[in-house]
Amino acid sequence: MNTLNGLIPCIISGGSGTRLWPVSRQNMPKPFMRMRDGMSLLQKTFQRAARLPGVESVLTVTNRDLLFRTLDDYRVVNKAHLPLDLLLEPFGRNTAAAIAVAALHVQEHFGDQAQLLVMPADHLISDETAFAAAVTQARELAEAGYLVTFGIQPDHAETGFGYIEKGDALGTGYRVKRFVEKPDLATAQGYLDGGKHLWNAGMFCFKASTLVDELAAHANEVLAAAKAALEHSQNLQNKTSRQRELSAEGFGAAPDISIDVALMEKSKQVAVVPCDIGWSDIGSWEALRQLTPSDPQGNQVNGEAILHDVHNCYIDSPKRVLGAVGVRDLIIVDTPDALLIADAHRSQDVRYIVAELKRQDHPAYSLHRTVTRPWGTYTVLEESSRFKIKRIVVKPQASLSLQMHHHRSEHWVVVSGAAQITNGEREFLINANESTYIPAGHKHRLTNPGIIDLVMIEVQSGEYLGEDDIVRFDDIYGRAPAADVKK
Amino acid sequence: MNTLNGLIPCIISGGSGTRLWPVSRQNMPKPFMRMRDGMSLLQKTFQRAARLPGVESVLTVTNRDLLFRTLDDYRVVNKAHLPLDLLLEPFGRNTAAAIAVAALHVQEHFGDQAQLLVMPADHLISDETAFAAAVTQARELAEAGYLVTFGIQPDHAETGFGYIEKGDALGTGYRVKRFVEKPDLATAQGYLDGGKHLWNAGMFCFKASTLVDELAAHANEVLAAAKAALEHSQNLQNKTSRQRELSAEGFGAAPDISIDVALMEKSKQVAVVPCDIGWSDIGSWEALRQLTPSDPQGNQVNGEAILHDVHNCYIDSPKRVLGAVGVRDLIIVDTPDALLIADAHRSQDVRYIVAELKRQDHPAYSLHRTVTRPWGTYTVLEESSRFKIKRIVVKPQASLSLQMHHHRSEHWVVVSGAAQITNGEREFLINANESTYIPAGHKHRLTNPGIIDLVMIEVQSGEYLGEDDIVRFDDIYGRAPAADVKK
Repeated sequence: MNTLNGLIPCIISGGSGTRLWPVSRQNMPKPFMRMRDGMSLLQKTFQRAARLPGVESVLTVTNRDLLFRTLDDYRVVNKAHLPLDLLLEPFGRNTAAAIAVAALHVQEHFGDQAQLLVMPADHLISDETAFAAAVTQARELAEAGYLVTFGIQPDHAETGFGYIEKGDALGTGYRVKRFVEKPDLATAQGYLDGGKHLWNAGMFCFKASTLVDELAAHANEVLAAAKAALEHSQNLQNKTSRQRELSAEGFGAAPDISIDVALMEKSKQVAVVPCDIGWSDIGSWEALRQLTPSDPQGNQVNGEAILHDVHNCYIDSPKRVLGAVGVRDLIIVDTPDALLIADAHRSQDVRYIVAELKRQDHPAYSLHRTVTRPWGTYTVLEESSRFKIKRIVVKPQASLSLQMHHHRSEHWVVVSGAAQITNGEREFLINANESTYIPAGHKHRLTNPGIIDLVMIEVQSGEYLGEDDIVRFDDIYGRAPAADVKK
Repeated sequence: MNTLNGLIPCIISGGSGTRLWPVSRQNMPKPFMRMRDGMSLLQKTFQRAARLPGVESVLTVTNRDLLFRTLDDYRVVNKAHLPLDLLLEPFGRNTAAAIAVAALHVQEHFGDQAQLLVMPADHLISDETAFAAAVTQARELAEAGYLVTFGIQPDHAETGFGYIEKGDALGTGYRVKRFVEKPDLATAQGYLDGGKHLWNAGMFCFKASTLVDELAAHANEVLAAAKAALEHSQNLQNKTSRQRELSAEGFGAAPDISIDVALMEKSKQVAVVPCDIGWSDIGSWEALRQLTPSDPQGNQVNGEAILHDVHNCYIDSPKRVLGAVGVRDLIIVDTPDALLIADAHRSQDVRYIVAELKRQDHPAYSLHRTVTRPWGTYTVLEESSRFKIKRIVVKPQASLSLQMHHHRSEHWVVVSGAAQITNGEREFLINANESTYIPAGHKHRLTNPGIIDLVMIEVQSGEYLGEDDIVRFDDIYGRAPAADVKK
């Protein structure tokens, strides 16, 4: 094993997890969902990757709008200070394009023989030892030039996943006879009984050169678009990470197609490593519920709930007290601005709610009440036609852009930490329990010079309070002066 | 009819309506619940009383803590500026004591022959014309010296009400043969089929002297306590109302007993007027739901809800978007700090949730997030160990007490209206979009000198933020300087 080349875990952090609304939303999708231990799925995936032997760098492919919260999440768990590579997509283009840019990037920076381990950012794996063993098996096959898939040993007749049919034995795994789409229940039962079919977990291992060569042979359009996207990417390198923002023009030319359809189903070089690793894709609230211990009544409760004759309910209400009477088999998920109540057997259908919210262009489709920005977060506490009240949290050393509003003035009251303020021509520091006033038309900037979070209350007033009343003069996060985002 | 003496509608506004939690709570009980037309049950009851002919004054018996919000509600609907009498209970002592003090008060101020019409504050009556006609019938019997009850014509075999059995015809009504307790279903069906039984609606009509005489004969302990409570009451008379705060010592001596048990079941002078007036006591969410029009799926929705295959659900979610999937027969009631989800057939059992909240001394038992004060309201928007943010609304011409806090300082930002501020030795006016700062230890007062609501944001900070850190120097509402209530 020591002869193997370096390993680059490649975390694919895309998709919106619409079936996990209202916690998962477009601008805070499923990888950022926190489990009950406080860690996000993305953090768990990173940790699982970082603990593998021989890792040279962790590569992440994600949307460019998710860069800062991805780095925030990694900062907490990247104790070993592994180097980070980030490929930033202008928009989602399915897994074929994402994996293609990953392989090309690895080939360029780590060489032809470097191995990629493709890991979706939003799955759970409970048996990390078995996972590491499966990766070792997969790397041997990858070294031999195979595109290696991971096949999960089924324990029930599942109709929600694609399957992989094992062929002849091959070293530490098997050849793949064929991939099959999501089956009906009878077929799934047949697969389970037959013992030849495994769940397709969407994880892969291969050498960079193998993937690039096979794409050239079977999906050249994907490869060409990926090359163009990288060639015209905007690059940023600092001491902790290398970031490449893919060009929209190049990336946009890639077909919206999965790696399974584009390549795996066509290539003759595909192997599978069967594994039993406690895997879950957490595809729905019901799937998450299956992983959560329940009380004697079959209920799983997070938060303050008073239950009278309630059975088999999954209740997540961290902020408000919930009273329930005589109900059973419900999924109840409460967030500050939106509430879900679903029959537990229908939790797949939550997607219909999200589709309707999207159609209505409803804020609860994309945003949480607390909105994450590169510099921290803001939460709208109260809103009316003439005023808006926000709690603003600025991370240590972070800074909002130098900006100006035409129509609104702002009162700032610091409740915790310290704020360095630019207000018109003046610069000054205010501390907890002090306040300042920014009249409309004044250029202003807010910086946290300290080492703890700055928490302040902003009271906006004026005749127009839209987030697009902003003129931005200077931004340390390189955001455009256009009035497209808040601060 | 013109020979009749004056009529004093007597609104009994007590009870907490625990089965209507989380909207009805101890400090904002059922009479204050708003129906979909924006009017509270109390306002509807007042209006129904005020429209009757011959009304001299509207008398209300309620808890002293509910005085100001009762007057606020009446102000909106008392267009005719009817005189108001208010008897303020120090605590609830059931209907016998409440009606006894009402009758004694009416006897004292309006004479022996004045008639009382006792009306619970939290019932709905949809046919006001039929109601007025029934009152006219009842007044004739009351004039002849009867204690007159109102018997609702049953339309189904209800097990949740007591029944009145009609006896011989008597003028415009019937003698009462007997009162019966809540029956089982078979008995209720027998009552319905037999045609002799009516629902006991808890409404009564009688001359003051009749009630006092009958109490003396059958329930002298109640009468004695009521006399003592009035004798030592604290009285306040102004141009719009006469208020008597009953003495706790006197009132506390009254047995906790209903007027039915104390008197009606014993007196020989009891009559009943059968009526069909569209009556509902709104005893549960299910009862309220029965009065609400439903959509083709049988759902009743208030607020923004996205429903996928949802049937026969009552949904009240005025502030947050709700997504529901595949559920039926649920009562869902959402408030800013508490949420109820109940099987519609079990809505009586909401009382168990409330009992448990009470046992835990949970704030959601007694208070809403928006708390009503004599001068207006406050809402806690956000709270942490070091700061608390409130939205404060002060009614025109209202004023908070002159006060001081030892441990917290307060930032005030006016977002709407104008504020007259006393801050230490200074007095000044601030307008929308202006702010001031009250350091800990400064005496301060806030007044709304204007004719529109003053809305302001208060940011409190300090090491201790309890509502009991208050020293009150002067209060136009006569509240004690003791640190027992906020402002």
